[in-house]
Amino acid sequence: MKLQLALDDLTIQQSIELLHKVETYVDIIEIGTPFMMMEGMKATQEIKKRFPDHEVLCDTKIMDAGAYEAEIAFDAGADYVTVLGITDIATIEACVNKAIEYGRKVVVDMICVPDLPQRIKVLEEIGVEYLAVHTGVDQQANGRTPLDDLIEMKEATKNAKIAVAGGLKSSNLYLYMPYAPDIIIVGGGILNAPDPVKETKMIKEILK
Amino acid sequence: MKLQLALDDLTIQQSIELLHKVETYVDIIEIGTPFMMMEGMKATQEIKKRFPDHEVLCDTKIMDAGAYEAEIAFDAGADYVTVLGITDIATIEACVNKAIEYGRKVVVDMICVPDLPQRIKVLEEIGVEYLAVHTGVDQQANGRTPLDDLIEMKEATKNAKIAVAGGLKSSNLYLYMPYAPDIIIVGGGILNAPDPVKETKMIKEILK
Repeated sequence: MKLQLALDDLTIQQSIELLHKVETYVDIIEIGTPFMMMEGMKATQEIKKRFPDHEVLCDTKIMDAGAYEAEIAFDAGADYVTVLGITDIATIEACVNKAIEYGRKVVVDMICVPDLPQRIKVLEEIGVEYLAVHTGVDQQANGRTPLDDLIEMKEATKNAKIAVAGGLKSSNLYLYMPYAPDIIIVGGGILNAPDPVKETKMIKEILK
Repeated sequence: MKLQLALDDLTIQQSIELLHKVETYVDIIEIGTPFMMMEGMKATQEIKKRFPDHEVLCDTKIMDAGAYEAEIAFDAGADYVTVLGITDIATIEACVNKAIEYGRKVVVDMICVPDLPQRIKVLEEIGVEYLAVHTGVDQQANGRTPLDDLIEMKEATKNAKIAVAGGLKSSNLYLYMPYAPDIIIVGGGILNAPDPVKETKMIKEILK
């Protein structure tokens, strides 16, 4: 089980300093959407340059112009881009094709997809290999967690790997472990912890 | 009727050079999503600084963390941010509230919204003032235009202003004029024209 650390609300320099302390516990470094909005592709470029042996995901949340936007992030060094599962299937296919061209990966973010099993079927048919269960920050504020969606997605998925995001931390990870997601995404759980290094280590221990 | 010029596939410097030539014909300068992905908030900051009397829209296409992401773009000087109409209503409300706090504006991008009249009703109830009819680049490639959606949205909208985007240029603008959208968004139609300045001027003439 991989640990993906989602970076947000930090400068590039602060991110690099934190990553030096936690890099042994982290598998995938995520440039979060607000971080990308702030810094553009510079965040992905600088972090991939300093951590070339780690996988880097740029949380592009592509909604349109799939080939063009995926290319921007792949050119910056991203190993993964994200595309929104609710968008036009042509956009998702364009991202998948661009990933094949570059030998990289696409994660389809299922945030706000109303009918998960039906959409997963279509996505697997066009060759999607990674799906993200994602309860948004604003949905979490209304008490929602990604657990029910994870269970539903696990049942509906044939081959795709599953990432899960939305309020995860060491203290609630036990709820998700029985469903064996392939990637655990933690952002605030680590960044807002009293001791982010200790929290990252604890999470990685649970995932082993 | 306002003309919004969507900038993409240009550097900040190239954008500024083009804007100096067309600024008298343009009402709203849009920092397109891929442009924002490339340059981060620097594009919005630099362009608003050089064209302070123009309105600047940052095409954030917010899907989550509404307050946080809207704030990033408003802090950079954007007069408008965009949020996706298909996302959780809590995210859209958070953007609307942040816009009220800053005295700025939110445009809800209706790309891929399946039931336009039903969604418009909900959006107007929470105080949304701008709606964008948007046929994505990847949808245009499959022959779709924003015309049918514009007609449907015009009928369903009570008070909100309507912007329209998706393959518009001087040669097809006559199709949209009868439905009197409030904002016409042109990107490639100008940027890929043989003479972008002449094309911008022609479009502005039609809108007068």
